Formats: sequence, C-alpha cells, structure tokens
Amino acid sequence: MKVYNKAILPSGFKAAGLSCGLKKSGKPDLALFYSAVPAKGACMFTANTLAAAPVELCRQHLRKGSAFQAVIANSGNANCFTGARGLKDARAMAKATAGKLKIRPEMVLVASTGIIAKPLDLGKIKSAIPHLAGKLSAGGIEQAKRAILTTDLFTKEVTVEFALGSKTVSICGVAKGAGMIAPDMATMLTFIFTDARISQASLKKALESCVDKSFNCITVDGCMSTNDSVILLANSCAGNRLISSGRDLELFTGALEAVCLKLSELIVRDGEGASKFIRIRVKDAKDYAEARKVALDIANSNLFKTAMYGENPNFGRIVAAVGASGLRVKEKDLKIKLSPLSRREIDVEVALGRGSCAALIFTSDLTPEYIKINAAYN
Amino acid sequence: MKVYNKAILPSGFKAAGLSCGLKKSGKPDLALFYSAVPAKGACMFTANTLAAAPVELCRQHLRKGSAFQAVIANSGNANCFTGARGLKDARAMAKATAGKLKIRPEMVLVASTGIIAKPLDLGKIKSAIPHLAGKLSAGGIEQAKRAILTTDLFTKEVTVEFALGSKTVSICGVAKGAGMIAPDMATMLTFIFTDARISQASLKKALESCVDKSFNCITVDGCMSTNDSVILLANSCAGNRLISSGRDLELFTGALEAVCLKLSELIVRDGEGASKFIRIRVKDAKDYAEARKVALDIANSNLFKTAMYGENPNFGRIVAAVGASGLRVKEKDLKIKLSPLSRREIDVEVALGRGSCAALIFTSDLTPEYIKINAAYN
Repeated sequence: MKVYNKAILPSGFKAAGLSCGLKKSGKPDLALFYSAVPAKGACMFTANTLAAAPVELCRQHLRKGSAFQAVIANSGNANCFTGARGLKDARAMAKATAGKLKIRPEMVLVASTGIIAKPLDLGKIKSAIPHLAGKLSAGGIEQAKRAILTTDLFTKEVTVEFALGSKTVSICGVAKGAGMIAPDMATMLTFIFTDARISQASLKKALESCVDKSFNCITVDGCMSTNDSVILLANSCAGNRLISSGRDLELFTGALEAVCLKLSELIVRDGEGASKFIRIRVKDAKDYAEARKVALDIANSNLFKTAMYGENPNFGRIVAAVGASGLRVKEKDLKIKLSPLSRREIDVEVALGRGSCAALIFTSDLTPEYIKINAAYN
Repeated sequence: MKVYNKAILPSGFKAAGLSCGLKKSGKPDLALFYSAVPAKGACMFTANTLAAAPVELCRQHLRKGSAFQAVIANSGNANCFTGARGLKDARAMAKATAGKLKIRPEMVLVASTGIIAKPLDLGKIKSAIPHLAGKLSAGGIEQAKRAILTTDLFTKEVTVEFALGSKTVSICGVAKGAGMIAPDMATMLTFIFTDARISQASLKKALESCVDKSFNCITVDGCMSTNDSVILLANSCAGNRLISSGRDLELFTGALEAVCLKLSELIVRDGEGASKFIRIRVKDAKDYAEARKVALDIANSNLFKTAMYGENPNFGRIVAAVGASGLRVKEKDLKIKLSPLSRREIDVEVALGRGSCAALIFTSDLTPEYIKINAAYN
C-alpha cells in the first residue's frame, strides 16, 4: 500500500473549486466533484436530529437511487435550520449542477458547511455552477479541497494506492474540520473517491467499519454538528475484479481505513485553537464500547483539556473524568500514564483493569485561541 | 419567610475556621461545624464512581448511625485517589475531631476539596484540631465559610427563617464552588444547618427534592467532581412541633429549596472565569427529564458558552446542541429567544413544541480566564 499526503484523484474523477461570494473573505467557497461514469455511493451523516437540509436531501437521493456522478459542496453557510426553503435551496443546487452536467438531479449529492440558521444565497451558487462545471479537471482538486474549508488552517488530503490482481486501485480523500468536532460524527465534510469496482453492500460495510474507527473516534470540542457528512463514491474505473468479500475486501477496507484515519488525525491536528495533538488510549476494558466511552469522556473534559494546554500533569482530572463516566473502576486497578507534556504530541494511556479491550481517541487541547475564534465567529 | 444573604447559624450550632497549612497561600483551609446536641443528618454525594475517601467515610457513617454532631472539612486537598491511606486519613480526621469534642467518631462527617491524587498532610490537620475546637462559636461561621473555599472569589452563604406554629425555624447554608461544576452534583461542598425538629424520612425526602432542583441543575464546565457533598444537619433546637408531612413539610421544603437555589446560583455566578450568568429555560417538553437534558446539553456546549462570552447571538449553536441531544424536535416547532447579550445576566428560552413541561438550568460562559485558571492550577 502506498500513501501520498496529497489528493490525487483516481481515474475517472475530476474536480473544481472557486469563490462564488458566500465567504466575505473572498476565499474559495464552492466545490464540485465529478465522475465521468456513474458511481456507487455510500454515505454516513450526523446523528444530530436537526440535521441540515443538504443532509436530508442526500438521504432522499440515497433512498431513490444507487448511482451518483457529482457532489456539489459549499462552505460559508451550513444551510441548516433554514426550514422548507433550505431543502428547496439544496434541491436547486443539485438540479443546477445536474442540468449543467447533463445527469439526473438524483445523481448529485449536496453538502454545506458554515454558519447555521441563515438562508443560503442561492443566486450566487446557481450563477457560479456553469463556470465551475466548465473548470472540471483532475488538477481541479487543488481548488476544490480549499473551497470546502471554514476555520481550517490547512487542507486535509490523502491518497492511498494498492494492488488488486494486476490492477492498481486508488482511494483519495479530502476533508474539512475544524470546530464543532465530536463523534457521530465530527463536524466535518469528507469526500472520498475511489476507482475500485466493488459491490454496493461491501462499499457500505467498509465505510461503516472505517468511520467507526476514525471519524467517530475524534473530538475537538464535544459539539456534534448538524452537517457532518462522509460521502464515498466508487466508479469502477480501475477495472479490477469485483471486490465483494474475503481478502479483496480486507485489502480495500484496510486502504479505506488508512484514508479515514489520516483525515481524522488531520482534522484534530487542525482543531480550532489547538496547540497539542493528544492520543488517548484506554485499555484493559471489558469491551470496545466502554473503552471508547471512557476515552471520549476524558477527551471532552474541559479540565483535562486545559491541563494539557497548561502542560500541567494534573492526572487527578483524568481520574475524575473516568469516575464521571459512570464505569465501576476500582481505584487500585486504575493506571494512568502521560508522555512529557512539553511536546506538541501527547500520549495518554489509561488502564482500567477490567478486561482486555482497548480504544484510541484523538483530541486537542482547549486554549484561549479556541475561545477567541468561537467568541468572534459569526 | 425571611431571607438573609449571610450565614447566621441556627440555635445550637457553632463553627470555627483557621489555616492549618494545607494551602500554600496561607489562607484558611480547615473548618469545623458543631451541634451542641446530636442532630439528624441527610446527605447527598457525587455520582462519580471514583469518589473521594471522605465521601466513602461519610457513606459508612450514615449507614452506621443516625445522629451526628460535627462536620470537619478541609480545602487545598481533595483526599481523592489516595487509596487505602486516603480512607485511613479521613477516618483519622473524624477520630481526632470526635476525641476533642468527646463524641463518637461515627457522629463526625468529613469533607475535603482541592487537588486530586495527592496524599493528605494529616499531621497538619490533626495538630490544628484542638485549637479549632477551642475556637467554636456562633460567630466562627465567618472563618468556617472561608476555610472551605478553593478557587472561589467570594463566599456563598444564605439563611432563611420561617414561622412554624409559635416557633421560628432557621436554615443556614454555606457552600464552595467554583470549577469542576456539573450536575450529579456540582463540584462543591455545601453544609446546611437547621434547628428544625423533623423526622428522618422527611429530612431526607426534602433534601433529595431540593438538590434535584438546585445543585443538580447547574453546570460550569460539565466536569463531575469526585468530592461533591451536600451535608444537612437538623438538631431540633427550634422546639417546633415535629415536621413529618403536610403543610409543615411543605414549608420546610420550600425554605430549604430557597437555601439550595441561592447557593447554586452563587456557585454559578462565581464559576471559574465566568463573565456571564446564564439562565437556560427549556419549555414545551414532554417531561421534566427531557427539558433538563436539553437545557444541560446547551449549557455544556463549548460553542454556546464561547458565543455567550463573545456576546455573539449565534443561535445556530443552540440549534446544534438541541439536535445533538438526540431528542426528535421538529425544526418548525423549535423557538429560541435570547435576551440582550451585552448584559451580565443572560436569559435563554428554548421551546421544543413537544408538550408542557419545563426545566431551568444555571450556567456560566467559557472565557480565556477559565483556561488561565485551569491551565495553571496545580
């Protein structure tokens, strides 16, 4: 398996990005991803019950169809809590894109990120779509990956290649963070493109398994977004033998997991105001679920996060968070290890003495910069 | 009902406070509360499964006996995650106090607050107890209420009086905050003394009902403490007819609730780094439990808290928190009202459109000062 720390679109995919004027800063805010041939799709969305309009529209398109060819995504406005108009606007984004690309609107998936509860300026998006579609190219991923960002300080991108028989399969992912990041899922948009030929059931299964171990294992601020979306398209252009089970599926899932883990890690490293990247490993748990819950409860403790920022080895705050999780841990069994706090990367290991299962969570510290960003953000 | 914004000990109670050297600052750190006659006791403690040694000792004493005469409390060290030695130290605190007061050790309740996971300097406490006991007086509450504080900026105290037949019953409470504050319960110690004559069952029932509506409805940082304790002693010195049910119990519970609510409010007003005092009222819920959960989920959202600090009416963050609670709320039914954010006190009202129940939560904002305090605290 080869890993590239940059986005290289697999065969058959093109992308484009530009500024249509949603962001006051004039930075890119509209991205289009396109597959020359219909692709299978698998998606996972936020568990937030007040999910945004584009999430609702994607769910409708996924129920209706099984072939997708485009993803249109804007930043600067989440199109969330925008009522009936919001859904209409999301549908209009899909329709305008489909019209230009000469595909059915149901073949277009839509994603938005940005401020909640403000109506979308649909006119700006609609008038930019023809130009955007005209710019589609393999190299266009350079603009597209920037156009999905909000408070992110850097782009998040990775490409993985692996051999399958005589063919090379490629998986490329781009993502945006950087606040409102919590599991189920992080506040983020992730778009993953692969030229693999794979059965619909296997694609879905692989994505669910990978998201559980990656995007659902990160937290910046414990705040669950309304817009989280992971969209995965597989267009079969690699010409490999059909992946459906066994060793082939393991290979694909392993490569997809590498993509998801890398993007998750990048999202946390770029967490709003973050000065530390923290890995919390909880081990000796009875099962994965309790290990994960304890790790997340530690990761979401503001007292833990501020201690990490202050490079203050106050491990009593970890004890308090473990106890607050409600899990019955015996004091004598609880072992806590902290790597030196003066470094940019910190490892926390917590042993519960209850069994043999473990979970790994990525998080960041809580800093004055986080407050500055979020007190001012409008 | 008369309310005094200061601590006036009811008849039969005395207190004292001094510095025994646990706090490096030299501020008072040891408090003793005493009833001249045996009192009934009702207590509520943290739900943290790694509760501190003094909490464990109090639970043992409450199982053994039904009459209490003293509370010994130290600040500067939580005596938590201190193993078998911790419990031995807490027991030694009770024993030394009992010895000096010539009562049984089981009649002494113990509380500690401060840093977690450092052994207590028992020698300092033991050698100060004789002097502390010698200083007991009604006016000694002035020192005692200061000796329980940690990062608090002000004392928390209130006294309520009400007539019962021809007698006046008094309830006096003192508390400490100010960080690691979350329900079940807040990180806090609260000591409440009353001269009421009341049945054991009614005392317990009244306390549980009042704590649910007060200390369990506040959050500063969502972090559940290991040491939270509410200790209530009733010594019958008012000579009133026995309170056991009906109107008398309602009167007592009402007065006790006023004490608990006032102390809860003071704890939040003195929340670490707080620049705003925020009341979140969630209404039109199906039941109290869901109203309370949504209100707490909003209150514990760092994005909501930073928006309040920034006086930024970003109500999309309230929408996101409501949806993240998992409750099925229809977008069109959700109504959010915010009072002007430029004021020191902010009212948030959220209507869910699901029913007719409501809950009220007090919280504070998240500020750079909170981070400063908690990054440095050792």
